[in-house]
Amino acid sequence: MAEENTIFVGKKGTMAYVLAVVTQVNSGASEITIKARGKAISRAVDVSEIVRNKFLKDLKIQKIATSTEEIPTEEGGPLKVSSIEITMKK
Amino acid sequence: MAEENTIFVGKKGTMAYVLAVVTQVNSGASEITIKARGKAISRAVDVSEIVRNKFLKDLKIQKIATSTEEIPTEEGGPLKVSSIEITMKK
Repeated sequence: MAEENTIFVGKKGTMAYVLAVVTQVNSGASEITIKARGKAISRAVDVSEIVRNKFLKDLKIQKIATSTEEIPTEEGGPLKVSSIEITMKK
Repeated sequence: MAEENTIFVGKKGTMAYVLAVVTQVNSGASEITIKARGKAISRAVDVSEIVRNKFLKDLKIQKIATSTEEIPTEEGGPLKVSSIEITMKK
């Protein structure tokens, strides 16, 4: 999948990411992936639920995958953090 | 699935739920579902990642589903909240 069809959910308000997803799909993307790490995972689920229940009802969740990423830190060992990828398709 | 094979993740520390999952599997459950709503969704993903990376490496994620639940409130309309169900199987 092309990187431009991926939305990284972080600390902004939920609706900012909803708008980003809706905009990408309306400009021609037929498949989109929402990614998030750590506490933003809950927000990523909110984004996909709001998009498909309110804005793009023909979008279906194709796959949800979780994994563990290691983030290097300056002090000591790497920090492990959970991540999620939600792929939605028309 | 029997209700006793379901772990509801809430506001306790992550390791409390990890222990609950490991205990249930070690007492004979071959399939277990982790459920959470709202901000606890991130913690539910942490629980499943820690369980399968550290404690029960033969456990595989079978399905991850998200949905929107409506919670009745005393003032005005129902509150919509996202939820997740992570099903893991040996």
